[in-house]
Amino acid sequence: MTYTPLRELSPYRFFSPEMTIRNLAFELYQQVENLPIVSPHGHVDPSIFCDPKTKFTTPVDLLIFPDDDITRMLYSLGIPLETMGISPLDNGTYEKDHRKIWQTFCDNYRYFTVSSPGFCLTYELDKTFDIQENIDHENAQRIYDQIAEKLRSPEYSPQALFRRFNLEVLCTTDAATDNLDGHRQIQSANSGLRILPTFRADGVIQLDDPQWLNQVEQLSAVTGERIADYPAFIRAIEKQRLLFRSMGATAVDCSTLTPYTQELTPLEANSIFQRALKGETTPEDAVRFSGHLLMEMARMSLEDGLVMQLHCGSWRNYDREIFVRFGKDMGCDIPIQTEFCRNLQPLLNKYGKDPHFTLILFTLDESTYSRELAPLAGFYPAVKLGPPWWYLNYPDGMARYFDQVMGIAGWYKTIGFVDDSQGLCSIPARHDIWRRASANWTAGLVARHQISMEAARGLMDELAVGLSRRVYRL
Amino acid sequence: MTYTPLRELSPYRFFSPEMTIRNLAFELYQQVENLPIVSPHGHVDPSIFCDPKTKFTTPVDLLIFPDDDITRMLYSLGIPLETMGISPLDNGTYEKDHRKIWQTFCDNYRYFTVSSPGFCLTYELDKTFDIQENIDHENAQRIYDQIAEKLRSPEYSPQALFRRFNLEVLCTTDAATDNLDGHRQIQSANSGLRILPTFRADGVIQLDDPQWLNQVEQLSAVTGERIADYPAFIRAIEKQRLLFRSMGATAVDCSTLTPYTQELTPLEANSIFQRALKGETTPEDAVRFSGHLLMEMARMSLEDGLVMQLHCGSWRNYDREIFVRFGKDMGCDIPIQTEFCRNLQPLLNKYGKDPHFTLILFTLDESTYSRELAPLAGFYPAVKLGPPWWYLNYPDGMARYFDQVMGIAGWYKTIGFVDDSQGLCSIPARHDIWRRASANWTAGLVARHQISMEAARGLMDELAVGLSRRVYRL
Amino acid sequence: MTYTPLRELSPYRFFSPEMTIRNLAFELYQQVENLPIVSPHGHVDPSIFCDPKTKFTTPVDLLIFPDDDITRMLYSLGIPLETMGISPLDNGTYEKDHRKIWQTFCDNYRYFTVSSPGFCLTYELDKTFDIQENIDHENAQRIYDQIAEKLRSPEYSPQALFRRFNLEVLCTTDAATDNLDGHRQIQSANSGLRILPTFRADGVIQLDDPQWLNQVEQLSAVTGERIADYPAFIRAIEKQRLLFRSMGATAVDCSTLTPYTQELTPLEANSIFQRALKGETTPEDAVRFSGHLLMEMARMSLEDGLVMQLHCGSWRNYDREIFVRFGKDMGCDIPIQTEFCRNLQPLLNKYGKDPHFTLILFTLDESTYSRELAPLAGFYPAVKLGPPWWYLNYPDGMARYFDQVMGIAGWYKTIGFVDDSQGLCSIPARHDIWRRASANWTAGLVARHQISMEAARGLMDELAVGLSRRVYRL
Repeated sequence: MTYTPLRELSPYRFFSPEMTIRNLAFELYQQVENLPIVSPHGHVDPSIFCDPKTKFTTPVDLLIFPDDDITRMLYSLGIPLETMGISPLDNGTYEKDHRKIWQTFCDNYRYFTVSSPGFCLTYELDKTFDIQENIDHENAQRIYDQIAEKLRSPEYSPQALFRRFNLEVLCTTDAATDNLDGHRQIQSANSGLRILPTFRADGVIQLDDPQWLNQVEQLSAVTGERIADYPAFIRAIEKQRLLFRSMGATAVDCSTLTPYTQELTPLEANSIFQRALKGETTPEDAVRFSGHLLMEMARMSLEDGLVMQLHCGSWRNYDREIFVRFGKDMGCDIPIQTEFCRNLQPLLNKYGKDPHFTLILFTLDESTYSRELAPLAGFYPAVKLGPPWWYLNYPDGMARYFDQVMGIAGWYKTIGFVDDSQGLCSIPARHDIWRRASANWTAGLVARHQISMEAARGLMDELAVGLSRRVYRL
Repeated sequence: MTYTPLRELSPYRFFSPEMTIRNLAFELYQQVENLPIVSPHGHVDPSIFCDPKTKFTTPVDLLIFPDDDITRMLYSLGIPLETMGISPLDNGTYEKDHRKIWQTFCDNYRYFTVSSPGFCLTYELDKTFDIQENIDHENAQRIYDQIAEKLRSPEYSPQALFRRFNLEVLCTTDAATDNLDGHRQIQSANSGLRILPTFRADGVIQLDDPQWLNQVEQLSAVTGERIADYPAFIRAIEKQRLLFRSMGATAVDCSTLTPYTQELTPLEANSIFQRALKGETTPEDAVRFSGHLLMEMARMSLEDGLVMQLHCGSWRNYDREIFVRFGKDMGCDIPIQTEFCRNLQPLLNKYGKDPHFTLILFTLDESTYSRELAPLAGFYPAVKLGPPWWYLNYPDGMARYFDQVMGIAGWYKTIGFVDDSQGLCSIPARHDIWRRASANWTAGLVARHQISMEAARGLMDELAVGLSRRVYRL
Repeated sequence: MTYTPLRELSPYRFFSPEMTIRNLAFELYQQVENLPIVSPHGHVDPSIFCDPKTKFTTPVDLLIFPDDDITRMLYSLGIPLETMGISPLDNGTYEKDHRKIWQTFCDNYRYFTVSSPGFCLTYELDKTFDIQENIDHENAQRIYDQIAEKLRSPEYSPQALFRRFNLEVLCTTDAATDNLDGHRQIQSANSGLRILPTFRADGVIQLDDPQWLNQVEQLSAVTGERIADYPAFIRAIEKQRLLFRSMGATAVDCSTLTPYTQELTPLEANSIFQRALKGETTPEDAVRFSGHLLMEMARMSLEDGLVMQLHCGSWRNYDREIFVRFGKDMGCDIPIQTEFCRNLQPLLNKYGKDPHFTLILFTLDESTYSRELAPLAGFYPAVKLGPPWWYLNYPDGMARYFDQVMGIAGWYKTIGFVDDSQGLCSIPARHDIWRRASANWTAGLVARHQISMEAARGLMDELAVGLSRRVYRL
């Protein structure tokens, strides 16, 4: 098959070809195209910003390694993870030559064309590296050289890219047990970059994680709190949240398989906690404790003002063998059916009516958009709906989100965009797709005479930066 | 944010801007625009039509109080229910000044723009009150005056509006225990308005409702039947259905959390009934009795010819505190996952094959459209699919319904539109949205050369009034 | 209602009326319009191809009897199955006059217009029988004569139609116990038609099927294997698969209610098997055995190279009375909620990572497209996604599939089209709809500047024939 992806990025990319919508969308997009980027949640490693002299070493380090969406798609084509430079935990062999990894990537680039990572990559190559050629088997090494050369210049250091991408603020995701030395270093370096930590609660919440005891020890170490019982555990978490807040954090992130919530009595909570300390956790313990801790996180958010994010419905490390051989985040996290209504009732009944509390819900199960999430956000003052997340974060997925959520919850109960990027370069790529998808949707409302162009302009600003700035208190 | 909603209603509202579709849609819409409105199911209070001299007192009485979609959206923005004039059951204070309530509503009107209630309100203000201005903080009181003045004139009495809206027939929803005195009064007044009752079975079916015993007593009182056992209970229901039918009712409505059905033996049914009379209902009793009564309602419909409507999947009064403090219908009814296939098998296996029986299914779970509902309607002669209901009743929701249902079940197994309105003024607004959405969908079929314009014209009449007239036997 | 379906097929049928998309779609469609048809899975009876002199006797034999989608839609309108010529198993009366059956069909043809079978029928009448008239009550008998006359000519024999439809290869579905004499006869006739069998495993897998013991006996007879225990049973299945492979089969098909998988020990498997031989199967046995056999089918596919297809989520013979009175495949198979993630974990963890294994997943539950299926195909080398199946196989259903699957899994993890036809004439009709829907989707990508026209051309060839040829190894 001769298969040649697009040569260059059109200014009308992702817009309906219908001229009324296209022209309106283009106008609305231009209004927000160059607005600063607010990135309230993502997974870029903050350490790359500590030293202005840090550089990305190769195109593979920059574009491939941080993006497990690329890894999983190549793997799905039958290319072993080792071939993509991923080292097995058992010290097995793997490809260390970045030029060979890049070649494999380019040999298979045509399979990415009509997919979420493909849309991002095309943008990154064009806008960040000024490469309009289609990468393929033939030009792989030449393109590698072009990118590698750029990476050696100071204009392509992480700090320089941060500025060039016009990032107003970048929130990273940091373990609950982090001492935030990295963030402290960034802030004391006075680089002028606004990079804030986010408290990721999972490690200390999930009793059935083999690392849990270890996490509790680290939590104890970092807080100086001797964690011998449940009240001390809670005190330590509260203390760490305050540390995060003092370092600029405005949000907390919880990621659980289901959004199950249930309040335990202090006695029950402590019994389960004691069993866990002794390594005697039962599966039921883990579920109930996680459900209780979500309630506790909500209570703490009401007290310390940190926004609570809930990312549910991903079965992490679905393939046991991949997990054992390579560890986590290898692209084998599969969404499952998610039930929000019954699961969140205890939490929402207790805390959802308080407008001072903010709970942002993310889903990988689109059937919940109109059925549960939009109605919940359409009633509870505390509830807001996160934008399309992970697998759903691509143009068609965004169109479905607008279609299914907005008419029920109202735009004001959404939160703008969250890029959730792992790689620095994909941040502007993803925001550009969102801004284009937003412009296209908003233009459609105007073209169908549902709102005025004046209203559309206001809505565009909100979707691009206004809502996320306000909801995340940035 | 400067946010100004649309100044005036375009004749092309809700139509695709693509010119072929737009022009066809406009032509098809014009064909049905002024057809009479058939409203086979809704919640307008029939008592407002008893006396031709009845008037709405304020804009708030007319536009805000009857519409819990407005209440829930304002509440979701952090505005207390009391501020919107809703009185707590505990005699707490609440806003009684309708001008202040209206002001709060207008202050927040911009948040409604891209939402289902927003689309209706824009229509109501324009078509019913000739107000093309955007309501906002500034003009709130002036607009209040304009509406209030109109409400004082006889042209804005409920009866006058009924005629002006060109309502061919309006079916209300009435408790199974209603003596229908209100309807009797309307009919004896010879106003010429066709207003028919609908038998709402819930109150006497749901054993776990705290009001159940009370409802049974009322049922006993209204039928003169001493209800000491299950057979007497069934006799009383049958008697009431006949009363409703004699007053013009053509349909029955059942609203249960799930569509669970199961036939009990008379002995089992009576055991559960006896326990319920003694206040000893178990949760399992309630589920089984409800499942059995749905079977019984189907049997009765076969016998007395009343159409059976089933509205499933709404968790009513999801927030306990709101329910305790304010009572029901406060906007906190959240949809849950709904399973029709397994749940309805007993009922459909027994009654679904009889073409003399009509069972209309409504859902709040869109994932059931193509998976369960369209295939069920595409096989069982008795089954018809209700249009998008409640949260799903907005232009995008209608488009998804057409898209997912029609190709599988065929248009003839749908029932046209059901507005389900609580407020009188939203009836024409909702039918207009439906007629526009139908025209746009049908125009798309013609524009894609799937059907002829002649076929499209026939289809439009059916979707606008034909199907609902025929299915509901009106 | 005057209701007249479309007079003639437009060359732009099913394309967006937006001119950019329409023109691109037309160009892309023309590229593949006359490509040969690859039909890797369907239910056409192979026996009709054995003898070149075989003819279809009446229009009803050709167009109505093989298509249970027509039967179910007519039944759903209140027309008894007997009236449509379906004979009750109890020797009750039924319509034997094909002219009367045809008349009933034509009397109701207008109800098919906006539906999946309607779209196919319009194509078949036009392209295969050169009938552009709308069939209706008036012209029913005249049209009957026109078709019947054509069927008498040698150009309308099954073999002639096979060639005229440009079928490159047709895969039928054959019982696991089939001796393939029919296929042997076709192949020895040297007709030049490529017709291959597919091993349908269900009959021997489903312990709770009343016919299971009988199937095992047939399996024993056809393989010459004395099946007294589980190992012999497995040997017999493996032997039959080899027979199928030797006759050209490239695939196996499994159809289970859920995709539940679980590996049993040989001891457990044999215990269940022994109970089943004695007619003492428990419901749990049936579930566990089916789950285990799916694992075994995967293992065998890895060994013998046959592609494994999994069709899940249809509750077959949902109506007991219809099943008892008329037997299976009467149109009363209703989809249920389907869960792939948990159910397939054992199978995928064990076999899914091997790129030499191919597992094609089909669903009737669209909510699984973006939630489970695309992510699974987007990781596991063995997993591919089947196109919209059965109820979902119509233009809107295809559009939703492209929208929800492609961006996540990538086009390369899909398999092109599978018509699943029961009637020979509907094969080209369905492929035409798919090719048009594919062209419209691909044109949209070009028109929105997401891919180049060159890429689109490559993609079109893949969607039309390339992918199915390659995935099914045809």
